[in-house]
Amino acid sequence: MKPCIVLQSDFGLSTGLPASMTAVIAKTDPEIRVYDLCHEVREYDIRQGGSILASTFQYWPDGTVFVSVVDPGVGTDRKSCVALMDNGSYVVTPDNGTLSLLFDRIVSVRQIDEKVNRMPGSDEHHTFHGRDVYAYTAARLASGIIDWQGVGPEYPKEDMVRFEMPSAEVIGNSACGEVTGAHDHFGNVSISIPNDMIKQIGIGLGDMCRVEISREGSVLYDKQMMFHRSFGWVAPGEPILNESSNDYVEISINQGSFCDIELPELLSAYDLSVYKVRISPVSKDVLE
Amino acid sequence: MKPCIVLQSDFGLSTGLPASMTAVIAKTDPEIRVYDLCHEVREYDIRQGGSILASTFQYWPDGTVFVSVVDPGVGTDRKSCVALMDNGSYVVTPDNGTLSLLFDRIVSVRQIDEKVNRMPGSDEHHTFHGRDVYAYTAARLASGIIDWQGVGPEYPKEDMVRFEMPSAEVIGNSACGEVTGAHDHFGNVSISIPNDMIKQIGIGLGDMCRVEISREGSVLYDKQMMFHRSFGWVAPGEPILNESSNDYVEISINQGSFCDIELPELLSAYDLSVYKVRISPVSKDVLE
Amino acid sequence: MKPCIVLQSDFGLSTGLPASMTAVIAKTDPEIRVYDLCHEVREYDIRQGGSILASTFQYWPDGTVFVSVVDPGVGTDRKSCVALMDNGSYVVTPDNGTLSLLFDRIVSVRQIDEKVNRMPGSDEHHTFHGRDVYAYTAARLASGIIDWQGVGPEYPKEDMVRFEMPSAEVIGNSACGEVTGAHDHFGNVSISIPNDMIKQIGIGLGDMCRVEISREGSVLYDKQMMFHRSFGWVAPGEPILNESSNDYVEISINQGSFCDIELPELLSAYDLSVYKVRISPVSKDVLE
Repeated sequence: MKPCIVLQSDFGLSTGLPASMTAVIAKTDPEIRVYDLCHEVREYDIRQGGSILASTFQYWPDGTVFVSVVDPGVGTDRKSCVALMDNGSYVVTPDNGTLSLLFDRIVSVRQIDEKVNRMPGSDEHHTFHGRDVYAYTAARLASGIIDWQGVGPEYPKEDMVRFEMPSAEVIGNSACGEVTGAHDHFGNVSISIPNDMIKQIGIGLGDMCRVEISREGSVLYDKQMMFHRSFGWVAPGEPILNESSNDYVEISINQGSFCDIELPELLSAYDLSVYKVRISPVSKDVLE
Repeated sequence: MKPCIVLQSDFGLSTGLPASMTAVIAKTDPEIRVYDLCHEVREYDIRQGGSILASTFQYWPDGTVFVSVVDPGVGTDRKSCVALMDNGSYVVTPDNGTLSLLFDRIVSVRQIDEKVNRMPGSDEHHTFHGRDVYAYTAARLASGIIDWQGVGPEYPKEDMVRFEMPSAEVIGNSACGEVTGAHDHFGNVSISIPNDMIKQIGIGLGDMCRVEISREGSVLYDKQMMFHRSFGWVAPGEPILNESSNDYVEISINQGSFCDIELPELLSAYDLSVYKVRISPVSKDVLE
Repeated sequence: MKPCIVLQSDFGLSTGLPASMTAVIAKTDPEIRVYDLCHEVREYDIRQGGSILASTFQYWPDGTVFVSVVDPGVGTDRKSCVALMDNGSYVVTPDNGTLSLLFDRIVSVRQIDEKVNRMPGSDEHHTFHGRDVYAYTAARLASGIIDWQGVGPEYPKEDMVRFEMPSAEVIGNSACGEVTGAHDHFGNVSISIPNDMIKQIGIGLGDMCRVEISREGSVLYDKQMMFHRSFGWVAPGEPILNESSNDYVEISINQGSFCDIELPELLSAYDLSVYKVRISPVSKDVLE
C-alpha cells in the first residue's frame, strides 16, 4: 500500500485552497489516501504550524508524506525543501522554520528542483506553491513517480532555518520555562516544562502550586492552583496546572478558556517564547 | 470491506486533535476509511454532540464504528464504553449522556478495558482519551484485531448516563414542546415537536400559526408566522415555522439567522430544554 | 477505479450537514472516495460558491462528480440538475447560478428526476436536498447504478440560471474591471483583470501602479502600490497588487488583511460586481 499524504496549512477552511492541494494529489494518483492535519493554523504563524506538526508527528504511520505550508515568503527566494525523517516519513515544506521542533529527527534534506517538480502549466503562478509545488511533489513521491534523489539536490540540514528551542530548567525550587502554545479553542496554555520536572521539584498530583507568567520582567499572572492529571480534577471555572497529552504541563480552566479569561494577549502573540513561566511548590505550612 | 470509522468531537478544527485520532487509526490499519462527522461541537456540550450524532446516525452504513468524544470528565473516573447498536454499528464514547437520544437502539454496552485497549506508551496521558483509548479501540474493532467481547466487560445499558428525553404533547389546541437545538450557522431553532403533530392541531402547509417561546414561565418570543415545507416559502428576512430534514419542525428566518436576530441567548445556553415552545393555530376569522 | 466525489456547500463545519452527504455516499457505495472542497461558503452566497468551484475545477481528475449546494431556494420550485462538463466531470447542483463561470465548459445538462433519484424514505423532507437528492444522485452516478441518461430529462443549457460574467477591459491607459472575491481568511481581494492585461498597459513586475476601487461612482480607495508576483515582495503591512494563483490579479497586504483594514464592507457584500476597479500606471516622472 502506498504511503498516505497528510496536509497542513494556514489556508483556512473558508477557501478552496486546502482542497486544491488534495485535488492535485487525487489527479496525480487516485490510490493515495489524503488526510488533513489542520488548515486553521493562524495565518503566517510558522511556529504554531511547526508545533502542531511536531505534537502529532509520531501518531501517523512511518513513511507518511507530510505537506506543511505556512509560507509568508511564497514567491520570494526562500527555499522549498523535503526532509527525510528518521522513521522514513517525509516533510514537504518551505524551509522557514517549520521543522525546528523536529530537527533532531531529520536524516537528510533536499531542495525541491522546481524545473522537475512543479505542476506543468503553473510556471506563471507565484502565490500558491502549496498546490503547484508542494502537493505535486508529495504526490509524486508517495506514488513512486520520483524517488528521494528525484526531489532535487541535497544540502546540509544545519543550513535549514530554525527557531530557538523552548527552554526549561529547574532554578532553585522552581521549574522555569516558557509558553509554547495558546489555544484559541479550549483556551489552555502549553508550557515548555515536562511533566517530570514538576514532580522533580516536589509537586505531586493533587498538590497546590504557584504559577507565575511574566513578559520582559513584568508579572502578568500569579496565582495558586492545583496540579493534577487533567483539568477535570477541579470544579468548572477553576484554573489548574495539568499534565497534557504530550508529556508537558499546561494551564487550563476546567470547562473554560484560560486565555480568554486571564491573558487574551497570548492569543494574538506571534512569538510566545517571550512569555516566561515559573512553577513553584506551595509550602504546606504557609497560609495562602 | 472493513467498516468505516466516523469521528465526532468538540476538539475544533484549529487544533491537531481531530487529526491525531485519524492518525492512530491510519497507523493501526491503513485500509480503514475514516470520515469526520463534526469536530466543531460546542466545547463540553454533550447534548449537542449527542443530537448531531442521533440526527445523522441512520444515514451511515450499518456496521459503522463511531467515535464520539465530548468529554469534560476526561482523566477522572467516568466510564469509557462501546455500545453495540441494533444495526450492527458501534459507538465508542465516554459514558456521559452521548447516547441519550439513541438509547432505544442500543443492544448492549461494554466498558473499555484500558489494560488492553489503550495505545501502548500512553499510560501517562490523562487528557486525550479520544486519541489514546477511543480512536485506538475503534481502529482495533473495525480492523478485526479485537472482537466485541474484546472491548471489555458488559454492563447493563440501564446504568448508562442519560439526559431526559425532550417532550412534546398536544395540550388543548396547541402543540407544546421544547427547544432541542440552536444552530450558530444558519441560526434556525430545532424543536421537539414532530411535523405530524402540527398537522394534528389543524395547521396545514401555508397556514399561519402562533409561535411562543418561554423560559421559566416568561414569554421571550410570541409571533405569528407561516408554516410550510421549507424556509424558502417566505420572503427573505421573514420568520417561518418549517418542516426540518429530520421529521421535526424548526423555526427559521429565510436567508437570515433566527437566533442572532430574535434570541441570541439560545446560542450560549447549555441546557436548551428550559426553553419551552407552544405552537397554536391562528383562527382565520381573528384579526392579526 | 470509480470516479471520486467532491462536496461543496454553505452548510458550515459546526453542523452534521456536510457529513450527512458523505454518509449517504458511503452507504450507497463504500468504494467511492469522497473529498470536501469547501463547506464554509458564505451562507446563501451562490456567487462565492460558484467562484470557489470554478477556480479549483481544473485541478481535480477528469470525470470527477462534484456536488455543489448553496441552495436558498431549497424546497421551492427551482430546478435540480446535473451538468456534464467537457472533461467528463459532472456537477450536481441546484440550477441557480452555480455554474455561471464554468458555463462554457458545460456539454449538456439534465434535470434530476426525483421520482427515481431521491433517497427512499425522504419524500417528506424538503429542506435538505443536498443529502436526499444531490449526494444520493452523485453516489449513484459515480457508482454506475445510473448512467447519464438515468439522471432525468435533458434541457437546453441556455435555460440555466446564470449570473452576468465579470468584465475587464482596457480603457485608455487603465485596466478596468470589478471585484470578484473578498476573502475573509487572508483578506485579499480578487479582481476580474487578468495578469496579462496589467502588462499590456505597461506595468511590469516591481513597478508602482495606482489602484482605485469605487462603488456607484464614489471612490472608496485610491492608492499607489507595487505590482509584483506575490505579496511577499513588499514589507509586512504594505499593500500590493499581485498576480494570483489563477491568472488574475489581486490586491493584498503582506501578512495582513486588505479587507479588514481598508474595505471591510467587501466582506459582507453579496454582489461584489458593484465594486469597480481601475488600475493605472504611475508615470515615473510624476512625484507621488
